[in-house]
Formats: sequence, structure tokens, C-alpha cells
Amino acid sequence: MADYIESLAVLSEQFGRLQGVGRKSAMRMAFSVLEFSDEEAEQFADAIIQAKKKIHQCPVCMNLTDRELCPICSDELRDRSVICVVEDVRVLMAIEKVREYRGVYHVLHGAISPVAGITPERIKLAELLGRLRDDTVKEIIIATDPDVEGEATAMYIARLIKPLGIKVSRLAYGIPVGGDLEYADEVTLSRAIDGRKEF
Amino acid sequence: MADYIESLAVLSEQFGRLQGVGRKSAMRMAFSVLEFSDEEAEQFADAIIQAKKKIHQCPVCMNLTDRELCPICSDELRDRSVICVVEDVRVLMAIEKVREYRGVYHVLHGAISPVAGITPERIKLAELLGRLRDDTVKEIIIATDPDVEGEATAMYIARLIKPLGIKVSRLAYGIPVGGDLEYADEVTLSRAIDGRKEF
Repeated sequence: MADYIESLAVLSEQFGRLQGVGRKSAMRMAFSVLEFSDEEAEQFADAIIQAKKKIHQCPVCMNLTDRELCPICSDELRDRSVICVVEDVRVLMAIEKVREYRGVYHVLHGAISPVAGITPERIKLAELLGRLRDDTVKEIIIATDPDVEGEATAMYIARLIKPLGIKVSRLAYGIPVGGDLEYADEVTLSRAIDGRKEF
Repeated sequence: MADYIESLAVLSEQFGRLQGVGRKSAMRMAFSVLEFSDEEAEQFADAIIQAKKKIHQCPVCMNLTDRELCPICSDELRDRSVICVVEDVRVLMAIEKVREYRGVYHVLHGAISPVAGITPERIKLAELLGRLRDDTVKEIIIATDPDVEGEATAMYIARLIKPLGIKVSRLAYGIPVGGDLEYADEVTLSRAIDGRKEF
């Protein structure tokens, strides 16, 4: 039936392209849009266009931002001698929520995975190494996910950076193994930062 | 953090307005959009605008359509002597999937609920009565949801229509009580249509 209402089928298909949205949910969302006012629908459409247009990677840490530098890199009070390396921006957000970490970040935008064909060149590792050229950075905290790819990425980075004489640590295993950092609760995340272990 | 990226927060908020989408899912969807190409994002935005612009209620049965009449009302082969009354279009779609019912529909766009302040005037009941003025319609099958509001609506319609000498039936209780018609499996829906019971 939905196929008869072509514009509804098209909209539902668009929702279905979003990560983690199944066919039923996509259809439900499409219906939900029909209950919006014309103005609300235009605001929604505009929000998509604007987000795509304005948001880009911070040239320093690869975090997402709609300014020139991301809010963390442009914050004078952050400690530039410590870089926390994360796989994606959602993990950065989760750590920021704890309000304990005062260093800066580096977002890899992925993890090394030979199976998925993600080589070290495919993630933002060269950019991380570029940040270590002067003597500002004293410690790298690796906060990749506690899964196979995250562990492999952590090991790879540690082997690359330790020879430079920079301290390399990994979040403590307060975080549940095999889980997704994004969903860790704040206490667990906080303990993991406190108990970080040098490689 | 997301608050610093204003356009991301705005987009996430828009997703959060969709029925059944929580704050976490909304943020995940907003991030997902950032991974679209510019062209894909434009297609998504356009699908929202087009769906809102083109889709309206069929003037006969209140089903949704982007043509003049809905595909069912414009199908010469459908039996106009039987009207199946549903609360919303998703239930209509679920019944259509069974490919057993050959009559037409009437979409109420809601159910009577004194608690939620939805009076009989707020749903498409006047339009249903308008369709019974000539002698075409011989039977009304009430397929409102098997919950309190659906039952109340069914009783209300039955009392209104039975005096007109039109047969009024209700889907058989093959459908699970307290459930949501939209999620009934096809066999259950099919049995419910077969075993419909006259009021």
C-alpha cells in the first residue's frame, strides 16, 4: 500500500538509511512527519541541510564543529599536554559529560580493522602524529573501544608513540569489556579515567 | 558538548520530535546524517518537503494519498458495499497486506477518548455517516484497536449505524486483546477478518 503513496515510500526509505533504523521504524517516522505542520517540516528539512553544510572536522583534533576550531581546541583552559584518543565524536561527548578530563582530544574517526579493510591510513593517525612534532604533548590516553578493533588500534598507536618518549596510557578496565564506550555510565567512565594504565 | 555544535543539536532535536524517538536515538540519527553525502542529505530534506506537500487525505475514505483519490477508492474492483473502519492508515496497510479483504475503508484518524479529550467530533465520523446516505453500503466492519478507546469507538459507531439497517460487525477476537493492530501477524489478521462478529 505504501508503494502506492510514492512520496511516503520515498520518505520512509530515507529514514531507513539512517544507522540503526529498521523498515518498521522508518515507516513510523515517515508517518510522524505527516503530522508536522508545513512549517515544522520545513524546519526539519532545513536542519538536515544546515547540519551537513556547517559541520566539519576541527583541523586540530578532528572533532566535529560548526566553528573554525572545535570548542575544546579553542578553550584556552584545556591542558594541551594530554591528548585523549577516541574512535568517534560520541565517545568524546560521553567523556566530556563526566567533567573530569581537562586535556584535549584526537578523534580517529574509526578503528583499525583488517577484516573490514580499515588500514591505519584510513583513520586520522597521521594527523595525531603531526600533533606530536613539538614538545607540547606529554601523554596520550588511548580511549578506543574495548573490543578487538579498539584493542588493535590501541596497541598500534602505543607501539608508534612510545619510541617518541611520550607517555602512552589506556583507560583502565573499569569499562565493561566488549561493550560500547558510548553507553558506559558516568561513574564507570570516571573510574576508568582515574585508573588509566601506562602501556 | 553537542550544545556547542548548534546545528547538530538542532538536527538532533528535530529527530527527537518524531514519534517514538528518544534523545539517544535522535542524536545517533543526527550523526548518521553527517555521514551522508551532500546530495544524499538534499534528497532526504527534499523527501520531507515533498511528502508533506503531496500527501493529503482521500476525500472519500480519509486514507492518505498523493493522487486525487486514494488507490483503493480509485480501484474499480473494490466492493463498495463493505466499509472497513480503521483508526489510522497503518492499520489499513496491515489489513491490505493480507490480500483477503476486497471492500473499501474509512480512516477515522483517531479513536474516541474522553480522557484525552477526543470527542466523536474530533474523528472522521461525520464523513463516515455521509457515505451511508445512499443504499450502496450493506456492511460496516469495525477494525478499531482492541483497547479501551478502540472498543468505545466501536460501540459508539455500532449504536449510530445499526438503526440505519446496515449490518455492523467487529473483527473477531483472533487479534490479541490490549495489543496494537499494526503489529498483528498476517494469519491472525486473516482469521480476525473471517470470524468477524455482528454487533
